Amino acid sequence: MSIRPEHRQASPVGVGETVVAFDVGGTDMKSALFDTHGTLLGLRRTSTPLSGEHTAEAVLDRVAEITADYAREFPGVVPRAAGLLVPGLVDDDRGIGVLASNLGWRDVPFKRLAEERLGVPVAFSHDVRGAGEAEFRLGAARPFTDVAIMVIGTGIAGAIFVDGHPHLAGGFAGEIGHSIVIPDGPLCACGGRGHLEAIASAGAIARRYNERTGLAVDGSRDVLARAQAGDEIAGAVWREAIEALALSISQLVALLAPDAVVIGGGLAQAGPALFDPLIAELERLLTFHRRPRLVPAQIGENAGLIGAALRARDLVVNGAPADRPVAS
Amino acid sequence: MSIRPEHRQASPVGVGETVVAFDVGGTDMKSALFDTHGTLLGLRRTSTPLSGEHTAEAVLDRVAEITADYAREFPGVVPRAAGLLVPGLVDDDRGIGVLASNLGWRDVPFKRLAEERLGVPVAFSHDVRGAGEAEFRLGAARPFTDVAIMVIGTGIAGAIFVDGHPHLAGGFAGEIGHSIVIPDGPLCACGGRGHLEAIASAGAIARRYNERTGLAVDGSRDVLARAQAGDEIAGAVWREAIEALALSISQLVALLAPDAVVIGGGLAQAGPALFDPLIAELERLLTFHRRPRLVPAQIGENAGLIGAALRARDLVVNGAPADRPVAS
Repeated sequence: MSIRPEHRQASPVGVGETVVAFDVGGTDMKSALFDTHGTLLGLRRTSTPLSGEHTAEAVLDRVAEITADYAREFPGVVPRAAGLLVPGLVDDDRGIGVLASNLGWRDVPFKRLAEERLGVPVAFSHDVRGAGEAEFRLGAARPFTDVAIMVIGTGIAGAIFVDGHPHLAGGFAGEIGHSIVIPDGPLCACGGRGHLEAIASAGAIARRYNERTGLAVDGSRDVLARAQAGDEIAGAVWREAIEALALSISQLVALLAPDAVVIGGGLAQAGPALFDPLIAELERLLTFHRRPRLVPAQIGENAGLIGAALRARDLVVNGAPADRPVAS
Repeated sequence: MSIRPEHRQASPVGVGETVVAFDVGGTDMKSALFDTHGTLLGLRRTSTPLSGEHTAEAVLDRVAEITADYAREFPGVVPRAAGLLVPGLVDDDRGIGVLASNLGWRDVPFKRLAEERLGVPVAFSHDVRGAGEAEFRLGAARPFTDVAIMVIGTGIAGAIFVDGHPHLAGGFAGEIGHSIVIPDGPLCACGGRGHLEAIASAGAIARRYNERTGLAVDGSRDVLARAQAGDEIAGAVWREAIEALALSISQLVALLAPDAVVIGGGLAQAGPALFDPLIAELERLLTFHRRPRLVPAQIGENAGLIGAALRARDLVVNGAPADRPVAS
């Protein structure tokens, strides 16, 4: 069976072991093989098999099925390890999916279960930490050792690198989206109030505009377009999001003083309409603090898969996460 | 010359090399020798020699004078290294006092200058990171690897340990006192607005009560006593401080998820009147987040000297910071 051209694309992971990677989201799951040249093969997006309390098992079955499909489709490309990312609270060190309320699991030993099904070592992590690892090793965060990575989409998730290493804290670290910016402010999906995610995520921007106008909008991009066209309510919603982001980043800066804050996800596609006012507002809030670079993510929509592949390769090379590899 | 009893006291540093330690503050500087048994000798508090733009030089001269005094007073106790802590922005790695606005220095290479004067290796750090190191190795933070330490007095300073190591970021990390809790809130000494220090430091509590009542008070302890006696304004000032502390800690928890937050300084002496409502308010603010222990500092007022002594001993043992030693 020949490999169809659309199943091959360059990736930044470089030369290394052959691995298979999975990035499981709340709606879709993505998968790909990475060959010894770092070429991405068989990129596939399928629905996440939602089965209530059996979702974890269904996801693991799907992972095994896709791996078997790849074995038939790419018989010469045999993965020596796998990378698996899931959302929610994830304990990388213990290999456990601690909690994913919208996927119905709690304390699932994903790493062990995936290794039983696939017969190869499995690197298991959180979806945004995986994407962050890709940005840290190969993307926008590569020049820095102390970095915060924020992915702003439906929600806001984050990953923190301190002194060149991901800071995990049992999976609880990096939750900048669930940091309070307005005490007793709008309700967050997690049950908290005034969290950054409830004000400044792309999802919240669309929702808040809808709440104030009764108008349906096609996401945060639509709100920004309306703001740029002079819609005052859209302008206020966008500005409040920028102010909330700047406030949260200023708090992060006071505590951690990172070299850079990398912003990815759908909202980052707003480009200068996001970054220019955000940088100005952050500058207004800071005094003696270190100024971090605010930079857009570079790796793109496959960052999760690429991070999962990097972690999987680490397992083959030395059984533990490596320092940043040299990309080919 | 015999050693007078009041010049000897037990310390928790344990057995090790003989070192001399200095903890320079904005008003006073403290010093002591630590002998091979870990006994603290010659504890001395003198005024910090404030000389405008020459203060750094005057401090270094004083450090040399006191060391010479100790050599006369304790001739058998010869330090093999020194520890020196100063306030302000401090770059431990480069050995530089970056900025101390109230002490008039900027970019002073304290480590090199002190080594020239004393003729022994000098461990140079920030006063609160030094005290934090004592709490981390020997005190309240000892059981934990991820810890934030806050010292709440005239101001609020902090130190952060991530995965068992102090996080420095060139001296800019740990500034929880200069994290915004009330946007465009009260002016902070650093020029910012609504910083935690401007609302919840012991100094701010006394000042805010004075501003609202015109009454002079004897520090935050007096405000607390008035609050406990039913003074509503004192109660409001105290409560606002607790709420600001809980909010800032909740933000720290979302980002770093530390195992514990250690609180020292004058305000911590309020005991349960501080910790009980603070723990309750923090619990109200958190949702899925990890719950840190909130614990009072244990080492006491000599924590800075003890941390400086530990760092100095590290230099003799291996030329670099050691892991936590076993106290005798």
